[in-house]
Amino acid sequence: MPGALSGIRVIDLTHVLAGPTTTMILADLGAEVIHVEPPTGDDAREYGPFLQKVDKNHSGYFISLNRNKKSLVLNLKSPKGKEILRELLKVSDVLVENYRPGTMRSLGFDWPDIQKINPGLIYASISGFGHEALPEYARLPSYDVITQAYSGLMSLTGPENGPPCRVGSSIGDIVAGHQAAIGILAALHHRTLTGRGQWFDGSMVEGLFSTLENAVIRYTSSGEIPKALGTAHPTITPFQAFRALDSWIVVAVGNDKMWVCFCKTLGRGDLIDDRRFRTNPLRTKNREALARILGEELVKKTSKEWMTILEKDGIPCSPVNDIKQICEDPQINYRDMLVDVEQSDVGKVKIAGSPYRLSETPGTVRSGAPVLGEHTEEVLTSILKISHAEILSLREEGVIN
Amino acid sequence: MPGALSGIRVIDLTHVLAGPTTTMILADLGAEVIHVEPPTGDDAREYGPFLQKVDKNHSGYFISLNRNKKSLVLNLKSPKGKEILRELLKVSDVLVENYRPGTMRSLGFDWPDIQKINPGLIYASISGFGHEALPEYARLPSYDVITQAYSGLMSLTGPENGPPCRVGSSIGDIVAGHQAAIGILAALHHRTLTGRGQWFDGSMVEGLFSTLENAVIRYTSSGEIPKALGTAHPTITPFQAFRALDSWIVVAVGNDKMWVCFCKTLGRGDLIDDRRFRTNPLRTKNREALARILGEELVKKTSKEWMTILEKDGIPCSPVNDIKQICEDPQINYRDMLVDVEQSDVGKVKIAGSPYRLSETPGTVRSGAPVLGEHTEEVLTSILKISHAEILSLREEGVIN
Repeated sequence: MPGALSGIRVIDLTHVLAGPTTTMILADLGAEVIHVEPPTGDDAREYGPFLQKVDKNHSGYFISLNRNKKSLVLNLKSPKGKEILRELLKVSDVLVENYRPGTMRSLGFDWPDIQKINPGLIYASISGFGHEALPEYARLPSYDVITQAYSGLMSLTGPENGPPCRVGSSIGDIVAGHQAAIGILAALHHRTLTGRGQWFDGSMVEGLFSTLENAVIRYTSSGEIPKALGTAHPTITPFQAFRALDSWIVVAVGNDKMWVCFCKTLGRGDLIDDRRFRTNPLRTKNREALARILGEELVKKTSKEWMTILEKDGIPCSPVNDIKQICEDPQINYRDMLVDVEQSDVGKVKIAGSPYRLSETPGTVRSGAPVLGEHTEEVLTSILKISHAEILSLREEGVIN
Repeated sequence: MPGALSGIRVIDLTHVLAGPTTTMILADLGAEVIHVEPPTGDDAREYGPFLQKVDKNHSGYFISLNRNKKSLVLNLKSPKGKEILRELLKVSDVLVENYRPGTMRSLGFDWPDIQKINPGLIYASISGFGHEALPEYARLPSYDVITQAYSGLMSLTGPENGPPCRVGSSIGDIVAGHQAAIGILAALHHRTLTGRGQWFDGSMVEGLFSTLENAVIRYTSSGEIPKALGTAHPTITPFQAFRALDSWIVVAVGNDKMWVCFCKTLGRGDLIDDRRFRTNPLRTKNREALARILGEELVKKTSKEWMTILEKDGIPCSPVNDIKQICEDPQINYRDMLVDVEQSDVGKVKIAGSPYRLSETPGTVRSGAPVLGEHTEEVLTSILKISHAEILSLREEGVIN
């Protein structure tokens, strides 16, 4: 079954995480993604965990992000390397990169150059603060942890009155990667109508800023600065994690009617008439006192016991699953969200599947990640019609691998 | 300037956050989004902060998510309400909803029904665990905090050895909203080629699971269960937050060369030759001891002083901005990420802008959120050519507002 984006060719100049997230999504959805790597390989090939030998072809980190892609090694510092890239861009639909701003210009592939090469090309760049920037921001380096801190998200995450915490996955990279995919697909629709490509100038900091939801309007409308609240909700109570006998659980009591029901389920009918807790605003105001009381009740049974009891009574709840538990979860596995992929030189590897469950053209994991330069020859001969003799000479000159 | 999705009509049966995030993205990119609300309004209209009176037309929460949309009030429990929805679907491109699985079927708008109404329609549903589900998951309620807990993300977020923490914005809803937008846009491309619509069956839990990045492969390859680490990185050190004199800062020392430079910047050249810290694996192994030493140095100056010193020496760093600081940030404002929108009955409201910075068709905030039912008459007369007399009678019957 061909994917929704089958027939779309993507030149992927990305590395590590934000850009590769975008091209992974496009590849899962059926696009032909040609990951152009320097002779030293994408940096992510050196990130653990390593599945066998600690080398460029056995990084589990790289494999989970680069399934479904082709690898072409190209030395972009050489004039011939640039020439090959130029020829590829002429016959491609999309270019994605997440270099530091300035790098593409110094390579000769700034947006005006790209438009001249192929006016129909859709070009997406992802950087920490955006390419169009005030001078003092233009060249700042960015990592996920920096964008989480800078965007304000870290100030909202962590225990109440405790130290700020990082979201436990690199959500700054990943949200930016999703947004670039959206920008590219919207531009693709526009190109179908007009024939013209365009440039998406993504910023990781802005990406996260746009996901802060009510925190921004709370501040701009009242001047109140929202703070981290552990697992609690700023305006709904109880709606947070509690310690059960063996592990943590989450209970989400969304309204006053459910509160009454929850009190009965706990065998604490006395709380229904407690003046401190009668309405949601009162429960929110007296959250600490309430959390102490509920904590003492909920710690009496195991997570599993509570799930049975609470689900039976219609109280929204969840175990706080660890990574083992979610990987073994029946529904995650029923929906193929954990897939075995055949990885050359390593064998079967279990990675997260595609959440793009489209009825006709679902996202799929069709192959493992490429070995460094695995498709160099195939891409050059089949797409650019470069002869074998020329490939040998390009290899000798160090232009390709 | 028309948006990339101008000409695309979206019927929006969503409420609160995950679905509205999807339709907000489509609306920002130029689609015509008709938010079909029950006579009581989208629940989010009752969520604070309230900008004036505490009523359905003054929720800042609702405004920040529903800018650029139209509001049509339709009673879907009445046969005539269903009939109007059916007529609208015939002349629309996309349908988005985030009801609990089963609700659309009970309304008579299950996927097979929808295909009969309009075979070209793209239908996106978002639910906690997905519509195609094992029986015990099919009807479970879901809230953001539940999906954060269930997906494993909460187990990775929080202080080391401390309680789990929730990501400080509703990232479970928001990631699912982004993914549905991607699914819809990919399906739109596929429809352009084939004329056929399709169904996107999104799951919030899967959405977050797909963003856990290296945590999944670490577990599946080694059996190791990744844990929360505060702000620290599992394999790079020092790469975390520290307390400065006045607030928190983040320092991201990515490699051994930068470590030497960082020691000099701190005036702690003695640490360069400290055997515990010479390489990144050693620094990671001895993270606690290192954090204590660095903590004692970094607390000596203010955040602003450190930014000047560290940036000068090329050490990636960031203040841990609070919401006030990021809202006042020059770069965020230079890129119009905080925009004034004219909101009827309230005046100017400041909300987050669109991060879809496309060179020809950028995402834009063109209007505030609709008052409940503001566009009922306009939509019915202009799109469905319903007469004014008929509208009066529909209103009397309680089918519309």
